[in-house]
Amino acid sequence: MQLGMIGLGRMGAAMARRLANNGHECIVHDAAPGAVGAMRQDGFAGAESLPDFVAMLARPRVVWVMVPAAVVDPVLAQLAPLLEPGDIVIDGGNSYYRDDIRRAQELGARGLHYLDVGTSGGVAGLERGYCLMIGGEPQTVRHLEQVFRALAPGVAAAPRTPGRDGAPASVEEGWLHCGPHGAGHFVKMIHNGIEYALMAAYAEGFNILRHANIGKAAAGAADAETTPLREPQAYQYDMNLPDIAEVWRRGSVIPSWLLDLTAQALLQNPDLQGYSGRVSDSGEGRWTILAAVEEGVPAQVLTASLYDRFSSRGNATFANQILSAMRKGFGGHVEKPAG
Amino acid sequence: MQLGMIGLGRMGAAMARRLANNGHECIVHDAAPGAVGAMRQDGFAGAESLPDFVAMLARPRVVWVMVPAAVVDPVLAQLAPLLEPGDIVIDGGNSYYRDDIRRAQELGARGLHYLDVGTSGGVAGLERGYCLMIGGEPQTVRHLEQVFRALAPGVAAAPRTPGRDGAPASVEEGWLHCGPHGAGHFVKMIHNGIEYALMAAYAEGFNILRHANIGKAAAGAADAETTPLREPQAYQYDMNLPDIAEVWRRGSVIPSWLLDLTAQALLQNPDLQGYSGRVSDSGEGRWTILAAVEEGVPAQVLTASLYDRFSSRGNATFANQILSAMRKGFGGHVEKPAG
Amino acid sequence: MQLGMIGLGRMGAAMARRLANNGHECIVHDAAPGAVGAMRQDGFAGAESLPDFVAMLARPRVVWVMVPAAVVDPVLAQLAPLLEPGDIVIDGGNSYYRDDIRRAQELGARGLHYLDVGTSGGVAGLERGYCLMIGGEPQTVRHLEQVFRALAPGVAAAPRTPGRDGAPASVEEGWLHCGPHGAGHFVKMIHNGIEYALMAAYAEGFNILRHANIGKAAAGAADAETTPLREPQAYQYDMNLPDIAEVWRRGSVIPSWLLDLTAQALLQNPDLQGYSGRVSDSGEGRWTILAAVEEGVPAQVLTASLYDRFSSRGNATFANQILSAMRKGFGGHVEKPAG
Amino acid sequence: MQLGMIGLGRMGAAMARRLANNGHECIVHDAAPGAVGAMRQDGFAGAESLPDFVAMLARPRVVWVMVPAAVVDPVLAQLAPLLEPGDIVIDGGNSYYRDDIRRAQELGARGLHYLDVGTSGGVAGLERGYCLMIGGEPQTVRHLEQVFRALAPGVAAAPRTPGRDGAPASVEEGWLHCGPHGAGHFVKMIHNGIEYALMAAYAEGFNILRHANIGKAAAGAADAETTPLREPQAYQYDMNLPDIAEVWRRGSVIPSWLLDLTAQALLQNPDLQGYSGRVSDSGEGRWTILAAVEEGVPAQVLTASLYDRFSSRGNATFANQILSAMRKGFGGHVEKPAG
Repeated sequence: MQLGMIGLGRMGAAMARRLANNGHECIVHDAAPGAVGAMRQDGFAGAESLPDFVAMLARPRVVWVMVPAAVVDPVLAQLAPLLEPGDIVIDGGNSYYRDDIRRAQELGARGLHYLDVGTSGGVAGLERGYCLMIGGEPQTVRHLEQVFRALAPGVAAAPRTPGRDGAPASVEEGWLHCGPHGAGHFVKMIHNGIEYALMAAYAEGFNILRHANIGKAAAGAADAETTPLREPQAYQYDMNLPDIAEVWRRGSVIPSWLLDLTAQALLQNPDLQGYSGRVSDSGEGRWTILAAVEEGVPAQVLTASLYDRFSSRGNATFANQILSAMRKGFGGHVEKPAG
Repeated sequence: MQLGMIGLGRMGAAMARRLANNGHECIVHDAAPGAVGAMRQDGFAGAESLPDFVAMLARPRVVWVMVPAAVVDPVLAQLAPLLEPGDIVIDGGNSYYRDDIRRAQELGARGLHYLDVGTSGGVAGLERGYCLMIGGEPQTVRHLEQVFRALAPGVAAAPRTPGRDGAPASVEEGWLHCGPHGAGHFVKMIHNGIEYALMAAYAEGFNILRHANIGKAAAGAADAETTPLREPQAYQYDMNLPDIAEVWRRGSVIPSWLLDLTAQALLQNPDLQGYSGRVSDSGEGRWTILAAVEEGVPAQVLTASLYDRFSSRGNATFANQILSAMRKGFGGHVEKPAG
Repeated sequence: MQLGMIGLGRMGAAMARRLANNGHECIVHDAAPGAVGAMRQDGFAGAESLPDFVAMLARPRVVWVMVPAAVVDPVLAQLAPLLEPGDIVIDGGNSYYRDDIRRAQELGARGLHYLDVGTSGGVAGLERGYCLMIGGEPQTVRHLEQVFRALAPGVAAAPRTPGRDGAPASVEEGWLHCGPHGAGHFVKMIHNGIEYALMAAYAEGFNILRHANIGKAAAGAADAETTPLREPQAYQYDMNLPDIAEVWRRGSVIPSWLLDLTAQALLQNPDLQGYSGRVSDSGEGRWTILAAVEEGVPAQVLTASLYDRFSSRGNATFANQILSAMRKGFGGHVEKPAG
Repeated sequence: MQLGMIGLGRMGAAMARRLANNGHECIVHDAAPGAVGAMRQDGFAGAESLPDFVAMLARPRVVWVMVPAAVVDPVLAQLAPLLEPGDIVIDGGNSYYRDDIRRAQELGARGLHYLDVGTSGGVAGLERGYCLMIGGEPQTVRHLEQVFRALAPGVAAAPRTPGRDGAPASVEEGWLHCGPHGAGHFVKMIHNGIEYALMAAYAEGFNILRHANIGKAAAGAADAETTPLREPQAYQYDMNLPDIAEVWRRGSVIPSWLLDLTAQALLQNPDLQGYSGRVSDSGEGRWTILAAVEEGVPAQVLTASLYDRFSSRGNATFANQILSAMRKGFGGHVEKPAG
């Protein structure tokens, strides 16, 4: 079927290509100069202006918006007046699910249908397919089944779960109608919350492995501030991190796609030179914690992984300065210089 | 080659079978009545008495000990006097790596060789193979290459990491000589530490999803102790957890073997009836944290997952009673009854 | 000066008494039958009906609202139409500071002045005085200085901070104009967030002390699920918790009012019998975490203490059931029964 | 009574002075050149050589060792041969309690008595007195009662706990015989574990307050990596941290000595200039966590505060680099530069 794609960044462009590869017609638009031109060279139809783009779409129009979360509302404000009742708008970006609830109401007042589609897959998605978590009205979801099927990885991407027989369900293809408006981005939000903690689990483990040779370092000065390592002979291991990441990929309890990526990264760059360790976080990780707190559900692990990202960017500094000031106050302790 | 297996529990028996299936001769022993007999019916040679078992092994003997961590030293105390210089003893269980360092010295004084082999794979290992993390002297490891290769999953168990070409390295088969004595169990220890946190990440995420419908509950009483949910309309989702676990298996960032198992468990038993939620922990999870603390490496995520297991078994109760007593003291607050 | 107090619960009634004890006239009102009558017996004027209550107040009226957070808006909805431009409304309860910003606008549209006053002190406040954290317009705060001074503990309640000389500042008396609307409840919110973590710090420490004798317990069964304690001789201490709480009150680094309360509670009831350990949390603790997340500021300690309260009420159960189901899946582990 | 003090650093010198001020005779020794001389000028007797020092003590000798934890064993190795059966050795430093158990045995074999005395008080101790947590044999503790009483703050240092009447118990004076060898340092260890978390609680709270004005910052670039703040108008507060610290000192739930110190530090230096925020940790904080893990007691709050200190010194960097490498792998994300 035909679908219009707004936003030709890393995600949107690749999704348009995957749809085209699967026989769908994808009309493209992006406000950035040059973006549409690059796609045209690969045979896509598209328009630099939004009205022209909308005019190229057959009714009922299907418009997939794939732009940064902060830009969705401005785009919708321009787009909605150009559409007609019965048209469908999809937000496939990283929106907060509460915005979906509001937008569905606002667009619904114009007779437009709205879906929120949490989309996971990253740069590998063009080839691997995308995991799609969808919120909205059932009939709109049904209307777009072929689109979701084309974007999703398909059942062959993983062994079937024992007990799931017969014709594959949509979840086995890689897409799920999660519930009413917002449900898709809610599930995607939790996906990212989990992702942060999985990443941190590996990262902390490798960090402990990397320091398994601290017993080889010269003992610190014997002053009242420094605790000598009690058993330096127990920390004499120079661990080969690329090999450890690799060996865990087969037969252990902890294989995962994230471990695959870690093994790749460590193989190419065992000391991870060039990375400073300032780790960004996006909205989903934060919103996951807000949901946990509002639900009264403990999330120690997910939250710790988010906060560690905050700290990696220096946001704990003032708290640490207070600790140093207190230590000066009660113990006369002076901060040790780095190194 | 020939190998003697001591310990025919869940792990040891399956490993003996996998070795036999791959053409190795496996002589078995277990102190528990009936254990050897069961293996004999499947064609294994073995002995109920340790001396008889040792007598059945060709020199240099290779004895794989696969018993609970608390029993390794008693078994070695009985076994060592029966062996002769040049024989090899392998501890494939869940020992603390510091015990390996000590045992290697003690057995070395008798001319015996010792390897510590962290073994991962669980009940699926017979079929999937085992991930083997090995510590000890290089020549002893080389002597047993064929054994490790037979136990390990083999390179086909996962796609090769880009950049790893040519004949598969041992790590790609699923076994690694990690370093000197203790290094194998050290790496296995960290593996389990990571495992706990990965598990907790999924568990917390699903718990938040399960409570995404709390807005449907009747608002609590409006007293000074209770915070009303500010936006109940934002928590109206009845999430289908088995389907969500399934959809994440393809195309998302968080597929893993642990997610596969979660999807299976939720499909069969969506409410997880029959589980009370008392979660055991074994030594490796604890030792991982001790290593982090001694190395001075932060491990917020790994540690939180361990402590949550402690709490699941009621070990936080006295701390919570103190909180209640304080609240009574400063605010006159009385504990609310359960439910 | 004259002040009307709405809400005669634990806090409101005591504050009215403290104001009266300091020479202010306090007119009282509470919707609950009997509440006003009890105060009348102690000489307070008051009214069971809100209009009657308002009629008893001289203009410009000063009305202090001291009711549960969930009831503030309904009370204001009834109260505002009875007031006249220039009157002052104070919310001294546990409101979310964002509600203050909204209310100040709504009431301001009627010509009413609004202050948010985070009030700390608990049941001891009548005697000790209250710590007051105030948000709103400067001239309104100035108008009520005598009220704040009467409610606050006064400078003598603690030794003066070196460097604070001369006439005591309002902060030394125990009240602070923190900033514009909402600033008072913002600061009170953080106060409570800190409070939770301080409480948890002591509670965890005493819990570790209480278990310092675990080496005396019979060693657990030597199975693959149980890690034996490596050095039981190091955990042979039967600690006297009431005495330890007491000794820390003088000369240590950790004296505090919360420790005083802990020492009292443990002296009276060393095993804390009668407390089940289900710990409530109120809005401030949660909102503190929301603020940390939105600001991107790490708050590992504050958050952990909040989540532990969630867990104390059983809210981690489903997550723990998932862990048990996973463990069954990969290791064939069966949950151990309690005890 | 007479007592010999070894170690004239910050703590030892002040304790000698406090003992002298209370009428005890204190003979001093320190290996560092000049240390004894400085005390001699203030009237103390002492010796630069250890044998001379021992010779100055009357039998049964009482020797208080106040040196860094790493130096205790070397000092005892020199000291013990110079002593005679019946003499008493006290370790008042920051030793690991397991070392006390061993040392008591070693010294006991020579007929020497040993006490471990966890000593808290810091630089304020000379004036305020020291909190003493004592482990060892009852008769040795009794023998030194006058010494402990002189060092401790005395009952007047805090209001008596309701229910504690009559002649003050030793705990009310500020010293406690906690139990057998090691019990004193065990209790001191937990004291420090709690201390770290109390400090972190305040520090995190003030950090959130300091960032309460982030809504004033220009909104970040609207890219896929950055989450815009949803309600910037809710974060417009420029908080006065010195005043907030001060106001909490009276009438709130969270007054403490640590808050007093924070109020002092912020008054003098509101931006804490000169502190970089690299926070040291000493052995007790680490050992507290080891005890929690070995006891199976959750300690989320205490542990988080320790790990935050590790992170403040850059020890999380490699873990963060792994996170960045993973993000590059699945999402093509490039690290954002600082600032």
